[in-house]
Amino acid sequence: LRALKNENVGRAPVWIMRQAGRYLPSYRKLRQKWPLRELFLNPELAAHVTLLPVDELGVDAAILFSDITIAALGFGLSLDFSEGPLIEPKLTPQDIPHLPLLPEALRHTAEAVALAKARLSVPLIAFAGGPFTVASYLIERHQGADLPRTKRWLYQDPASFHLLLHKITDLTIHTLRMQIEAGADAVQLFDSWAHVLSDQHLRLFSLPYLKRIIDALSAPVILFMRGSTLHAETLASLGPAAISLDWQKPMAAVRKTVPLPLQGNFDPDLLFAPQEVIQEEVRALIASMPLDPGLILNLGHGIKPDTPVEGAKALIEAARCPLL
Amino acid sequence: LRALKNENVGRAPVWIMRQAGRYLPSYRKLRQKWPLRELFLNPELAAHVTLLPVDELGVDAAILFSDITIAALGFGLSLDFSEGPLIEPKLTPQDIPHLPLLPEALRHTAEAVALAKARLSVPLIAFAGGPFTVASYLIERHQGADLPRTKRWLYQDPASFHLLLHKITDLTIHTLRMQIEAGADAVQLFDSWAHVLSDQHLRLFSLPYLKRIIDALSAPVILFMRGSTLHAETLASLGPAAISLDWQKPMAAVRKTVPLPLQGNFDPDLLFAPQEVIQEEVRALIASMPLDPGLILNLGHGIKPDTPVEGAKALIEAARCPLL
Repeated sequence: LRALKNENVGRAPVWIMRQAGRYLPSYRKLRQKWPLRELFLNPELAAHVTLLPVDELGVDAAILFSDITIAALGFGLSLDFSEGPLIEPKLTPQDIPHLPLLPEALRHTAEAVALAKARLSVPLIAFAGGPFTVASYLIERHQGADLPRTKRWLYQDPASFHLLLHKITDLTIHTLRMQIEAGADAVQLFDSWAHVLSDQHLRLFSLPYLKRIIDALSAPVILFMRGSTLHAETLASLGPAAISLDWQKPMAAVRKTVPLPLQGNFDPDLLFAPQEVIQEEVRALIASMPLDPGLILNLGHGIKPDTPVEGAKALIEAARCPLL
Repeated sequence: LRALKNENVGRAPVWIMRQAGRYLPSYRKLRQKWPLRELFLNPELAAHVTLLPVDELGVDAAILFSDITIAALGFGLSLDFSEGPLIEPKLTPQDIPHLPLLPEALRHTAEAVALAKARLSVPLIAFAGGPFTVASYLIERHQGADLPRTKRWLYQDPASFHLLLHKITDLTIHTLRMQIEAGADAVQLFDSWAHVLSDQHLRLFSLPYLKRIIDALSAPVILFMRGSTLHAETLASLGPAAISLDWQKPMAAVRKTVPLPLQGNFDPDLLFAPQEVIQEEVRALIASMPLDPGLILNLGHGIKPDTPVEGAKALIEAARCPLL
């Protein structure tokens, strides 16, 4: 939390995006007992999963175990998971004016926050998807890499697309406020799919909605986007507490033009490398950001499900004791 | 060709990446008669397909109908197509030292160039994949968005990965030289997947190999990379004739720092928009690059198979007669 104020002294804190997930043996064991949906919807289970990586890896922050697609429940849509999220029915432009706003359907996430918070000695981060990213999940299965239904909708019917983004923004603000009231110390926004947009479309369909959320919350907001090293200055202008960087450009290069706290930015595939390579990369990044009061170590994207847990542990250990 | 020398006056030329493909009804008709492999390997058929968009859309250049994965044949691997390219067997680090170099297995592409060239009144562009991109196809099916097998290989065994890149580079130079001797007027290199690499890895595993190819060819080289608007200055330093830009940043913004000829960069999904929107965007891009002697109009990525042919025609017409 001090790093989020650019006031950290000493070692930079470290956590891992998607740190409570499939790469953890203890999580996979739980998944044999419970379907994914149950882990997300049952506050007791969600809180339990939230704590796993804190206990097992020694990360410096917890992030609520949840999914950006649970926003679907706040619109009265059905949500399940098999090879990824299954939201039914998929939205069309005609549906948008009639879409109800049901933030109470997401009350369980605030309960999970309260339960996790009571057991934690490190900060707890809540999160949500960026409105553009959430919209894309409500519109299509994410099978290709570039969201054909979403992109065509916004070219063919921009008005209904904006209305959908407004509704998602309203729901997100409601939900995150509940979670902050329940004890969340910070919020991360994941506009993970906004990189498929051109600069012009990013300014139309993503940034203003992110800004509305940032402005509406009392907790510090960490802003992530695939492509965030490219767009760092633009993202900084939205007023978040920190920017979470992808692994494309070195963090030190972004630091030259962005004074905000920066989180990141190891390549997620680095965790498949030999332990010495992981240690070297951690030391090199820390050395490139000497005494930076706003440095938070993390990956440049979520950890992959088939990551060896030894790789994740090597990263955390090297980050905690970089001189060993 | 004048635009590739920064010497064009008057209207900017226009063509479309992947312009001979599934969005064209005449092409789909051919595909009912011939399997895809046959269209690529039979010089007469490949030349015929190359000419389709020139005759039907009025584009200002032809690009050889081929595929970057046919490099597999030059290594003695088997290649077929069903839901995408099928290369067998997939390479492992142990295979690389023994991989043979058989450029004569790609002689048919030069024959297709000669046949097409004899019937064309516009320039003919040959192409190849960037060595990193070709390597990724030899290593894995492209199912996810971020090449897990390829990325892990280069972290775990960088030496064998470099040897593979050298071999692909040698094969590519051989093949493109045959095509230039057969009459190709220019070459486009597609390092379409290099955007999954960090800056550091891009400098290690992509750029030096692209440079070797550019330096070895007598024809002008257009260089494309997903992420080319981000990396435009770096790509320009490799000495290509032109850079082909993705749709992320406006072309006029890149022009401020890159004096080379620039090709691009309409969003491929724009072609799904109403015709007036397509016309407006074409006019806006042209107006943003007034009297630019190195402007070549194109998409920012290959045209999508399900693009309405009317969208492609609207783009070409608006580019040829922007004031209508």
